Amino acid sequence: MSDSKSVRPRRRFWGWGLDSDALSAAEVAVVKALMSRLGAASAETRAPPQESDFALAAPRVRPPTSLADSFSATPHDRLNHSYGKSYGDSVRMWARELPNPPDWVAFPADEQAVTDILDWAHRANVAVVPYGGGSSVCGGVEPAVGVDYAASVSLDLERLNRVLEIDHSSRAARIQAGALGPELEAQLRPHGLTLRHYPQSFQFSTLGGWIVTRSGGHYATLYTHIDEFVQAVRMVSPAGVLATRRLPGSGAGPDPNRLVIGSEGVLGVVTEAWMRLQDRPRFRASASVRFRDVFTAAGCVRALAQSGLNPTNCRLLDPEEAVFSGVGDLPNSLLVLGFESADHPVRPWMERALELVRDHGGEYDAAAVERSMHPPESDGEGEHRKGAAGAWRDAFIRMPYWRDPMVGMGAILDTFESAITWNRFEEFYRVVREEVSDAIRRVSGRPGRVSCRFTHVYPDGPAPYFTYAALGTDRGDFGASLSAWREIKLACNELVTGLGGTVTHHHAVGRDHRSGYELEVPATYREALAAAKASLDPGGILNPGVLIDPRDRAVGITGVLGPRVR
Amino acid sequence: MSDSKSVRPRRRFWGWGLDSDALSAAEVAVVKALMSRLGAASAETRAPPQESDFALAAPRVRPPTSLADSFSATPHDRLNHSYGKSYGDSVRMWARELPNPPDWVAFPADEQAVTDILDWAHRANVAVVPYGGGSSVCGGVEPAVGVDYAASVSLDLERLNRVLEIDHSSRAARIQAGALGPELEAQLRPHGLTLRHYPQSFQFSTLGGWIVTRSGGHYATLYTHIDEFVQAVRMVSPAGVLATRRLPGSGAGPDPNRLVIGSEGVLGVVTEAWMRLQDRPRFRASASVRFRDVFTAAGCVRALAQSGLNPTNCRLLDPEEAVFSGVGDLPNSLLVLGFESADHPVRPWMERALELVRDHGGEYDAAAVERSMHPPESDGEGEHRKGAAGAWRDAFIRMPYWRDPMVGMGAILDTFESAITWNRFEEFYRVVREEVSDAIRRVSGRPGRVSCRFTHVYPDGPAPYFTYAALGTDRGDFGASLSAWREIKLACNELVTGLGGTVTHHHAVGRDHRSGYELEVPATYREALAAAKASLDPGGILNPGVLIDPRDRAVGITGVLGPRVR
Repeated sequence: MSDSKSVRPRRRFWGWGLDSDALSAAEVAVVKALMSRLGAASAETRAPPQESDFALAAPRVRPPTSLADSFSATPHDRLNHSYGKSYGDSVRMWARELPNPPDWVAFPADEQAVTDILDWAHRANVAVVPYGGGSSVCGGVEPAVGVDYAASVSLDLERLNRVLEIDHSSRAARIQAGALGPELEAQLRPHGLTLRHYPQSFQFSTLGGWIVTRSGGHYATLYTHIDEFVQAVRMVSPAGVLATRRLPGSGAGPDPNRLVIGSEGVLGVVTEAWMRLQDRPRFRASASVRFRDVFTAAGCVRALAQSGLNPTNCRLLDPEEAVFSGVGDLPNSLLVLGFESADHPVRPWMERALELVRDHGGEYDAAAVERSMHPPESDGEGEHRKGAAGAWRDAFIRMPYWRDPMVGMGAILDTFESAITWNRFEEFYRVVREEVSDAIRRVSGRPGRVSCRFTHVYPDGPAPYFTYAALGTDRGDFGASLSAWREIKLACNELVTGLGGTVTHHHAVGRDHRSGYELEVPATYREALAAAKASLDPGGILNPGVLIDPRDRAVGITGVLGPRVR
Repeated sequence: MSDSKSVRPRRRFWGWGLDSDALSAAEVAVVKALMSRLGAASAETRAPPQESDFALAAPRVRPPTSLADSFSATPHDRLNHSYGKSYGDSVRMWARELPNPPDWVAFPADEQAVTDILDWAHRANVAVVPYGGGSSVCGGVEPAVGVDYAASVSLDLERLNRVLEIDHSSRAARIQAGALGPELEAQLRPHGLTLRHYPQSFQFSTLGGWIVTRSGGHYATLYTHIDEFVQAVRMVSPAGVLATRRLPGSGAGPDPNRLVIGSEGVLGVVTEAWMRLQDRPRFRASASVRFRDVFTAAGCVRALAQSGLNPTNCRLLDPEEAVFSGVGDLPNSLLVLGFESADHPVRPWMERALELVRDHGGEYDAAAVERSMHPPESDGEGEHRKGAAGAWRDAFIRMPYWRDPMVGMGAILDTFESAITWNRFEEFYRVVREEVSDAIRRVSGRPGRVSCRFTHVYPDGPAPYFTYAALGTDRGDFGASLSAWREIKLACNELVTGLGGTVTHHHAVGRDHRSGYELEVPATYREALAAAKASLDPGGILNPGVLIDPRDRAVGITGVLGPRVR
């Protein structure tokens, strides 16, 4: 058990990306400019964390030798599986604060090994934390604090990363849950098929993680979450396997898939799923539309969302967000609008959408729209990166890479997303920006930046995604930054749920959103879910502290416990 | 409590429709023709059931006087709430077989009364059967047999039938769960809005019933079930109220709405819901397409379902079904294809769909398609009944009216629906038709008719809906017909689930599909659902015998108990 069972390129244990990744010169310049805009005296970073900075205690238990092929306790594996990738995770690494690493990391080679690990853990009172790709930004993949377990194991399905079966006529594939985005797309591409699920974490998140966190993906409308693409799912729980049937639709009782989807690893470990796929798109059209007023722009987005045109892309960036994304044109808001199809030219769709845009006073470069439709693009490797939306999407994928060095420079950077009905949107947008700015000023003593985009839109409301940046401290006091961030986080949870929104549109609840989740979701439902968990995980070993935790009712936030409830 | 609390026109307690409804001369002729095709010697009906045919025992308990305003025990109310509207229900009425009527029917005037009724029932061990509109065709609304309750109450929310609130900007309305289809549409129409949910039971089914049975509606693609239109729901359970939040989307844990949707009255009583609405359509196009071969037609439907065009109507009738619906053109299959929009002319959609139709050898009257698009139709009362699909839809709504007299003439008539992935469809279709025909011949001693249509289609498979008709007995031996029907029903359950389909696409599980449900849905899920039920309904008083029944684990079928499981 002394060697790592990981076969993937080494991840940077303290932040986003691989050990070998680096920022480009242009990105370094952006980081410096951002730090300067935040008012930082300099853009010097502290020395990044190294493995030797951390003294890990020996594992508290030893797994049975029959499972030796799965387990690893190398410092890199344990460090890499200690936290997710939130700001709170990053700053704790910069602070070298790691009181509670997993004792072991398990890399099962097949589903039987998953079952065996859960059986052992159930008997031995060992907490099991399903790790997915480890990209959680809400405290979803770290061992519990404050509860007595004999030990904790982080469960990484990286060895279960294959596309096992393809049903061309139904356009579906059976895919192992440990497959990262690029891994599964590479296996589907030769068949002309694609899942087309591109969360920002695409490179470092897994199918299983997407399913249990209700990941938000590529499509701005209609198929906003992974949910709709799950045809059937297979989950191993301590009580046995829960495998749903491949069905295009059903009305037989509450949908069993929907209990698994969003369960955040507390009910079982998803090992594989039959996923609904798409043909690779051949026809596209895109437009970049400017609006002088953000609420006028939102009115246009509402009309588009209610039109039945179902644009693939319909992302509205408010003025501050457009600047942050490097595509700003102050004081304008920017709408990135796109259609795609594998079946038919999308010109009629785009033409009607542009009529709505003009009705709402949006301005765009008609020639550029025309160019986006000629010729149909080739079906190549980077096909989803081209067109008017391409520059924005490239920047989007790279955003997490910038954060870690900025954390080292003393910045506090975080995002939170919600969804709200249209009738409440204007108040929501105004109040959230004001109150978050106030919270930043209150806890950090300085003004911050708050920006917003719509990641997804619905006929009944948008999903606003807020980004904020603040300067925690110039003096590298990461503990103070962590405290400030926690306070802002809890304020955001209370704010968005208090205004009628959801505490998370697609980042999941984890630990960090539980204080909002308890306000948002009725106690009767949480009790019913806890009862379902007790049925599937009678020992309460799975991902303790996350989502609901019948054994420890404290509402925590990354690294600390909050007040006890009920 | 001696008078009825119902204020609606009197329903025909032994069948479909109102007491005042009658078949038209044309419909009588159709019934005679169908009986003749089944080989009946005559089309004479027995005397229909009358209230005086039934001697009802006195109610076994007396509700508290504080609830007197809700309760009724008139013979008509009790008879009317004894059964749903399946063939098994109808034939039992013809047979005057009614061993287990509800002791009382409750018509609460508000949600507080629902809560008070559940509180009393929980304390008094009285079973409560949420009745909806009573249109269940799977044994979903009758009192349990074989389990000890002090009494049983049928709960009818007909007094909760109002649209309470409309949010125009989010296109949503808060609607009480007892509203029938026509009631809620009449209240939405002045606002230019519509739910556009038209199950065959539209006239006699309720919003609450649609939600808890995952009713299948108007849209052939995309929004096939009521599920997607539920923005938020309010359910009263013995453990308290479960009220979800109005959100356009969320990723906060498993979707709480999805526990309520499909729960068939076993978890609580839905009292109201915020529903997503549509603008009333202004643009339409429709086509009737003939195919010489049903599998070629299915191939075309697959292409349409995978095209992203999302037709509103895409209903394929196999040759036998087309004849049964009075639009037959043997030996052709018929595809009814339609698009509608409130926002834009749908010509480009229809034109691309017709390209696909031609690619698959479909034939249609191009001039008729052209006429369907000119001019945009008025937004009148019967707007959803017009166009090429209109004749079929009128017949569709009237179909349940025919059945009861045919039952009286000795016919066995039933339907069952499933959904199956495309890769399995051809085998599924062939085997189901053969085996059901064999089962009919085996149990009734005569050949029957089996036909199929697609009610809804998905990118990954169709929802085939089978209708069968057989002659049970010419001698009016309804008991023998009932036995024959039960045998066929159980054979169908086993058949469709054995071939990989769902036991019900949109009729719900009730009692009659439980033998298939137990095969289809994993035991681990059913246990988790039972645990959730125990949390919400700790006394097990809600709709015992339906879906899952932790207290009585027998798998029954309308009126009888089946084998005990686990």
